[in-house]
Amino acid sequence: MTQRQVKAAVLLIGDELLSGRTQDVNLQAIAKYLAPLGVQVAEARVVADVPEEISAAVNALRTKYDYVFTTGGIGPTHDDKTADAVAAAFGVNIDVREDARAILEVHYKGRASLNESRLRMARIPDGASLIANPVSKAPGFQLGNVFVLAGVPSITRGMLQDVGHRIEGGAIVRARTVRAKGVPEGDIADALGELESGANGAVTFGSYPWFTPEGFGVHLVARSADPAALEKAIADLMDIIRARGAESEEVVEPS
Amino acid sequence: MTQRQVKAAVLLIGDELLSGRTQDVNLQAIAKYLAPLGVQVAEARVVADVPEEISAAVNALRTKYDYVFTTGGIGPTHDDKTADAVAAAFGVNIDVREDARAILEVHYKGRASLNESRLRMARIPDGASLIANPVSKAPGFQLGNVFVLAGVPSITRGMLQDVGHRIEGGAIVRARTVRAKGVPEGDIADALGELESGANGAVTFGSYPWFTPEGFGVHLVARSADPAALEKAIADLMDIIRARGAESEEVVEPS
Repeated sequence: MTQRQVKAAVLLIGDELLSGRTQDVNLQAIAKYLAPLGVQVAEARVVADVPEEISAAVNALRTKYDYVFTTGGIGPTHDDKTADAVAAAFGVNIDVREDARAILEVHYKGRASLNESRLRMARIPDGASLIANPVSKAPGFQLGNVFVLAGVPSITRGMLQDVGHRIEGGAIVRARTVRAKGVPEGDIADALGELESGANGAVTFGSYPWFTPEGFGVHLVARSADPAALEKAIADLMDIIRARGAESEEVVEPS
Repeated sequence: MTQRQVKAAVLLIGDELLSGRTQDVNLQAIAKYLAPLGVQVAEARVVADVPEEISAAVNALRTKYDYVFTTGGIGPTHDDKTADAVAAAFGVNIDVREDARAILEVHYKGRASLNESRLRMARIPDGASLIANPVSKAPGFQLGNVFVLAGVPSITRGMLQDVGHRIEGGAIVRARTVRAKGVPEGDIADALGELESGANGAVTFGSYPWFTPEGFGVHLVARSADPAALEKAIADLMDIIRARGAESEEVVEPS
């Protein structure tokens, strides 16, 4: 029995990602968190702090994929526009909610005033459930199939801990990598293409050249939800490289 | 006289970016390359090695923005689908082109065979102009307002050197950053919001909390195409922080 593929999109929000000020790391963190749950990230977008752009992207992605994860734009400042834009995308009301306010009251008590700006972080769209923030307390939220997370990487990762139990995953796609040394990609491309055709979609193959001061080569990655097909794919990859007289080994690396 | 804003989109192509195997660095490199030319990156997308997804994204972005930059998927292997997908997006023919083949012939002479796989790198859509690749020779190409670049970061950066002279930029948006120490974002959010409103779109302000072992604070970034407005914005930001009795200094950092 084959399980269905469950697909997600990631929507990264913030001018600072597009200007180059900030290097995003959340896409990778979310992809790695979801993979063992049986969810593959199939698309990502980066949009500016513009409400209409955020809403349009949320609507395009939530209708196309099983899940959407947004990061960024839920802090206390004027450039934090995500919560309102997500509410607008769903066509629901948004206001300060008591459960979210209570969390902030406990957190700021004796530290800082729960002023109007900070109260913005308690604005939650109608019908959403809160996502716990173990780092800085101000919650994220889930509305339908959309998970709204903070953008600061440590907080994003913290919030993910309250996401997994809400996810209904499907087939778990595993990846294995063979590292070939001294063989240029162009020499094995034909054989690799035949392997991909022969796999009839059960396995996909990726080819990623590497260059270091010690030499060059290629990482060949096989991805499949079928353990037996993946095992065979790795053996086939090793054969292709051996046939070229080149060195190879299986390596463990980020899949 | 105000110059118009010229906007670009970046389309990152490759399964490995979505699986988390590879951390993208090209978005940031392209954004930083374009900013001094008077081009702002306004949106980015990451799509898998799926021809229909690539074509759809190219068409969505090239009609919305002045320029589109794609990275990835122009190598010799079966998973390199970008050139054909871009041709399909424009509805033009694609085939091995003699000028591109000649570049590869010179490069591979005496090194490796220019086999069928490597010849794939000479497939260029009708009407495109080549983009020189000073690193590994196989060219990128420009078709209309779409620039198709390699995905390996050193090659992407190399190809950008043949891009700048083709770009008609507009207003150059500059960014300056004030680093405030010991002041939480929520304390200055109101004042910052007023500053943004008062600027009537001439300046945009971003607020980015920082945390280090030595303490915490916030980076306040002002962005503007108007040098005088930017100068005033920085003075205003300094005033806001001074009024809180906190330390601040202007810092130079990636904008």
